[in-house]
Amino acid sequence: MRDTYHEDLDALSRRLVEMTRLARHAVARATTALLDADLNAAQEVISGDAAINELNDEIEASAFDLMARQQPVATDLRTIITSLHMAGDLERMGDHAVHIAKIARRRHPDSAIPAELRSTVLEMGHQAELLVIKAGEVISDRDPDTALELDSDDDRMDRLRRKLLKRILGPDWEHGVEATMDVTLAGRFYERFGDHAVHVADNLVYMVTGEKPKDYEPED
Amino acid sequence: MRDTYHEDLDALSRRLVEMTRLARHAVARATTALLDADLNAAQEVISGDAAINELNDEIEASAFDLMARQQPVATDLRTIITSLHMAGDLERMGDHAVHIAKIARRRHPDSAIPAELRSTVLEMGHQAELLVIKAGEVISDRDPDTALELDSDDDRMDRLRRKLLKRILGPDWEHGVEATMDVTLAGRFYERFGDHAVHVADNLVYMVTGEKPKDYEPED
Repeated sequence: MRDTYHEDLDALSRRLVEMTRLARHAVARATTALLDADLNAAQEVISGDAAINELNDEIEASAFDLMARQQPVATDLRTIITSLHMAGDLERMGDHAVHIAKIARRRHPDSAIPAELRSTVLEMGHQAELLVIKAGEVISDRDPDTALELDSDDDRMDRLRRKLLKRILGPDWEHGVEATMDVTLAGRFYERFGDHAVHVADNLVYMVTGEKPKDYEPED
Repeated sequence: MRDTYHEDLDALSRRLVEMTRLARHAVARATTALLDADLNAAQEVISGDAAINELNDEIEASAFDLMARQQPVATDLRTIITSLHMAGDLERMGDHAVHIAKIARRRHPDSAIPAELRSTVLEMGHQAELLVIKAGEVISDRDPDTALELDSDDDRMDRLRRKLLKRILGPDWEHGVEATMDVTLAGRFYERFGDHAVHVADNLVYMVTGEKPKDYEPED
């Protein structure tokens, strides 16, 4: 049997995985809210964010407590600090889902997304889900190899966003100012959601190996 | 004379104040880049961000080292953890200045900001500078009372952003898609810059008093 100390460290990891589950649900519902002008879905994401924030608070409190009581060094200390970073990224992923849901709510009963961009936004939503699910697996399995995949998974998100911007700036764009703003911001929120998922994976690599992945650069 | 341990804690604080100086310079130059289509200013902000990131890395390394060697508890531990959070916020403020500078660079030799919005954007730049200067003072003086002012200072930033959006959505807006995107994103980056300054101040309150300010909610 593991001692209480290591059980507490495991509990940090379980809470992080739970945060990825909530963040996945949030971004999936936010995408529904956006594409279907579904006000209930939007409200659910907005009010559901409290649960993600609460897990972040719990992780912070638990990390603080572990450091104060156990005075961990080396690997354990790195695990705790890195968990704090990951929780912060996951918390912000929840916020980005809320930002997306708020675009939907603002434009309800219309849809904020013009018909010809629905498939691209749907793909961005799916890619966001994939990224956060993978981040959860990477944390749960402490798997630095899979973690390195997220970077190229995120490249796909960046390509989708560029596709969106190309349409907005193309000669056929005729959707007016509100749609331009909504699509611009929604595109950015999905992109940032993906970036934070990559940060989570990068932090897992650092947690397990003690080395920061090449090109690792915290942003935004 | 203070011992090495407390000198190291003081050094954390000095590095944070130095980050506020760099972030202030970055957002001031980014505003110049944006308003004057000044490519040199934009490049300076973009390349200058490495120095902010480096300070963040130094603070992380030093915090890690302090925790491992000194195994601090209670107040000192809170100081170190809170310093990590503040460094993270300041690092992201630098990133937002870079995002603003990149808008200017993308639109060069044109200015991304239509003439009738120049004064509003200038005010947002000034407000961003004020917020980060105050954040620096608050850290340097360990002053929770002044820290609480940043919240209402940031309300002014939010009002300026709403003014921007109102113009974009108003009947007289005739600047096309690119300007709509640029102003939408620039407005958001200034707003986020301000939010992070408020987080820095909130963290200082927590560092000094052990209480989180009411309504404190980390975001984005």
